[in-house]
Amino acid sequence: MLQDEGIRDRVAQLKEEAARQAVTYVEDGMAIGLGTGSTARFMIDALGERVRTEGLRVCGIPTSEASAEQARRLGIPLTDFVNHPILDIAIDGADEVLRGSLGLVKGLGGALLREKIVATAAKRFVVIVDQSKLVDKLGTHAPVPVEVTPWGWERAAKWLGETGARACKPRMTRDGSLFITDNGNMILDCHYPGIDNPDELCQAILAITGVVDHGLFLGMASEVLVAGLDGIERLVP
Amino acid sequence: MLQDEGIRDRVAQLKEEAARQAVTYVEDGMAIGLGTGSTARFMIDALGERVRTEGLRVCGIPTSEASAEQARRLGIPLTDFVNHPILDIAIDGADEVLRGSLGLVKGLGGALLREKIVATAAKRFVVIVDQSKLVDKLGTHAPVPVEVTPWGWERAAKWLGETGARACKPRMTRDGSLFITDNGNMILDCHYPGIDNPDELCQAILAITGVVDHGLFLGMASEVLVAGLDGIERLVP
Repeated sequence: MLQDEGIRDRVAQLKEEAARQAVTYVEDGMAIGLGTGSTARFMIDALGERVRTEGLRVCGIPTSEASAEQARRLGIPLTDFVNHPILDIAIDGADEVLRGSLGLVKGLGGALLREKIVATAAKRFVVIVDQSKLVDKLGTHAPVPVEVTPWGWERAAKWLGETGARACKPRMTRDGSLFITDNGNMILDCHYPGIDNPDELCQAILAITGVVDHGLFLGMASEVLVAGLDGIERLVP
Repeated sequence: MLQDEGIRDRVAQLKEEAARQAVTYVEDGMAIGLGTGSTARFMIDALGERVRTEGLRVCGIPTSEASAEQARRLGIPLTDFVNHPILDIAIDGADEVLRGSLGLVKGLGGALLREKIVATAAKRFVVIVDQSKLVDKLGTHAPVPVEVTPWGWERAAKWLGETGARACKPRMTRDGSLFITDNGNMILDCHYPGIDNPDELCQAILAITGVVDHGLFLGMASEVLVAGLDGIERLVP
């Protein structure tokens, strides 16, 4: 147990290192996409620190209510797509990173749709992970979260099964109720036995009526900062 | 003015004729997808009449709160996808029908997503229109409604513009407020100068992050009943 806690602490430390390095990319005047999740939380903390200590003037579009709340608390001004249709940079974590192409699985934090909107709006999309997230095949460690409209979700689940998912389970909250996204939708966590052709799977999932979006982020990452025991490795596609 | 009213009455009569013919396809014990809009309203009325006068035992999945309310009022029992994952038949109107392939534009009624879920769940999808809806090119009379998630809709509108739409306007209600779908989303009405390649456009629209679904229904109609001045024509793809 003590050993487990030690490993958890070390992973948290690695995430924080990657987050701090990503924040060094931020320059005065930038509009920034703020990710969601445990690694993004470190990034928003580090950004808040630069705002406070250096007087850095930036603004951010948060990808979840949680990240919005954190940014507000740290004095990071928020903006929107009317004022900033294009972001200078977006920084976010990932649940899996494919070696080579840097395809991602994202969305365990429940914010995949806003994360993807922000990623596609950014000139530079920087992904921060600890080394345990690197995989040789997507879908091996993490399920692919698929955001679906609640009405008729049973139909979407059936079609998702036909894309090769062994199980497509509605995500629940810790207290046992249905998880609902910030957009009012459900998440189906789809477990694939490894994804051989991510591009094909993307198209097949998007073609399903009732699917809003999914957690495969292909060809989007500008770079990935991987924090490992030997330091931070910078991967580009 | 009197003449205009005469034309409106004649169109309504044509719609009702198509609706009545579609309802003759319904058999005892069927699960039925109930469309939305002015033509579907005639169909639900005709179905209610058969339930009342013939004792027809059927159940329906409605594609909008309005159709649900109408069905309840007429004594048509409602069901869901848990009890009826596959429907025997779905009957709905359309805003445009392409001669030949019978590709459709739907969704002026604001219910395109539920309509598409129901259409894909049905063994037989019967479309009922008056003859003014037949076109040689989709997008010539009706805009293509695109359902988008409200958060970040400005980004989706920008990308939709790049698919060739001349204008992508958020749909408003008659009292000037933003129209919100039964699923909590917005509709962008995208005006194309005629759609040369509907299949390509479908894929391009679905690939836009923030798009939930769109009003192009391709390869879905099993048949189209077209009510014209000379009677009802039955088109198959």
